[in-house]
Amino acid sequence: MARVLTLGIAVLDTVLGLARLPSGGGKHYARARAEVVGGIAANAAIAIVRLGGEALLASRFGDDLVGERLQAELAATGVDTSRVEWLGSVASSISTILVDDKGERLLVNHSDPALFHGPASPFDDLVVDAVMTDTLWPDGAIPALQRARALAVPGVLDFDRVPRRMTGELLAAASHVVFGQQGLEAFAGTTSIEMGLRSAARQTDAWLACTAGGDGVYWLDGAALRHLPAFPIEAVDTLGAGDVFHGAFALALGEGRGIEASLRFASAAAALKCTGFGSGAMSPGRAEVERFLVEQSDLPVVEPR
Amino acid sequence: MARVLTLGIAVLDTVLGLARLPSGGGKHYARARAEVVGGIAANAAIAIVRLGGEALLASRFGDDLVGERLQAELAATGVDTSRVEWLGSVASSISTILVDDKGERLLVNHSDPALFHGPASPFDDLVVDAVMTDTLWPDGAIPALQRARALAVPGVLDFDRVPRRMTGELLAAASHVVFGQQGLEAFAGTTSIEMGLRSAARQTDAWLACTAGGDGVYWLDGAALRHLPAFPIEAVDTLGAGDVFHGAFALALGEGRGIEASLRFASAAAALKCTGFGSGAMSPGRAEVERFLVEQSDLPVVEPR
Repeated sequence: MARVLTLGIAVLDTVLGLARLPSGGGKHYARARAEVVGGIAANAAIAIVRLGGEALLASRFGDDLVGERLQAELAATGVDTSRVEWLGSVASSISTILVDDKGERLLVNHSDPALFHGPASPFDDLVVDAVMTDTLWPDGAIPALQRARALAVPGVLDFDRVPRRMTGELLAAASHVVFGQQGLEAFAGTTSIEMGLRSAARQTDAWLACTAGGDGVYWLDGAALRHLPAFPIEAVDTLGAGDVFHGAFALALGEGRGIEASLRFASAAAALKCTGFGSGAMSPGRAEVERFLVEQSDLPVVEPR
Repeated sequence: MARVLTLGIAVLDTVLGLARLPSGGGKHYARARAEVVGGIAANAAIAIVRLGGEALLASRFGDDLVGERLQAELAATGVDTSRVEWLGSVASSISTILVDDKGERLLVNHSDPALFHGPASPFDDLVVDAVMTDTLWPDGAIPALQRARALAVPGVLDFDRVPRRMTGELLAAASHVVFGQQGLEAFAGTTSIEMGLRSAARQTDAWLACTAGGDGVYWLDGAALRHLPAFPIEAVDTLGAGDVFHGAFALALGEGRGIEASLRFASAAAALKCTGFGSGAMSPGRAEVERFLVEQSDLPVVEPR
């Protein structure tokens, strides 16, 4: 069983279901509502636990009701929250997510910049099989990724969003960088995944990939661009699918799987998550993923079109 | 000092500030956030206390963290919450309110239909100078308005939204009905305030009015339609202004003022609320309203255009 540190943002998501997403102002009434744990690092940690791994979450909560709720929900799923830091005078992160009948989503997040500013507790005695971080807390992510290097284990950076600062240091510290499509576009200034990845390759020695939702995942294999299409599923809810991908990918690498096997494992976990309604907490178990991979074993890895 | 029962909805509002209101899906990041008490009956109660009256709130909270927060905030403002009913298995009402730089607002409310279903505790021994209700909890509002009749004090119905059921009974029980423009349109099927009010007059003996935001308030005076324009102010934030109007109107009637004086008082309180950023809790004090009314004493009551 591999042990993975996930570092970054944890959010209390309030999900409100409406017939249609509103446009402009006005008063609207939601039919359904749920409060769930969200945020990249937290969702990844939950996914790892559900996949049979051990997840240690390093994040920051405000010392408030939202923080208490996050702590309780994460502990209940089996995530180790002993590295969560509590800040007295800052509010915990929240998101409101409006979802319409077709699964389209509008997410509005509020995170106080002060929450993710300043160093994490030292990682000198941390022993894990892999590290995964998002870009929300560079002061925490860089030493965590450096600790992964010192341990000679994978250090995966989920580049979903360009960080406020220290982008170069983050890219230098990671051994694997997985961009989200929006993140790569904002970073490289191009909508071409290939050009974006090649541009990133000039700035870091890390292994580089980009997830593209229903279009699967692209990565650089030396000079070649490779592509794993997404598994064909009926998507019901894509909320948190990217986070599940990243958690599963770091877990698989931490278990010593190769790149392609890890990508297939992550892609299967993310696909299965999308078949049910719910956030990262609805991510699949190990047996479900392994069975799915056997059933879908003929899905090829192809060169990009 | 008059004592007013306000009955209906209390909501925990999460206000998120953005540069622009989003349209369609996507991820957005809010710059600012505040949690405030909202909901018609709760805002009206707060306004009444700030105007120097006594407010008794009858509402229903879920037995959850949101309910505890509502209770604490309302008690801190001086609202009497002894008539709040707590329901164990139902969630408290929440709203998310997105506000852009120009003050435009998108509100999404979630209220479990089960929360406002079923009778309130009896009002037989209630002694107040006025009653104000919204349309969210007809099972509670009707006996409260009937108690006002038994006490021979004003029973004001804030008809902001067509109730799920018992519309006729609500209109019959109230002595004063103040429609919101959206509520009147949905009720009467016309965008004409005059036609809407005349249509309502065929269904109830109550005194009838309709607020129209920056266009002021219209009411039926026997066969005549009359109009009080809004006071000329620089609106910064209109959130909860209608609720302040209703609370102030019920308070003024409860103090024995006439219709016109009560409308002017309510209109001034609502206008002053709009000059500062914040919800109903930012509603003005009594002295401020009285001074404003003296300064604006030449503002005429006119026949409609």
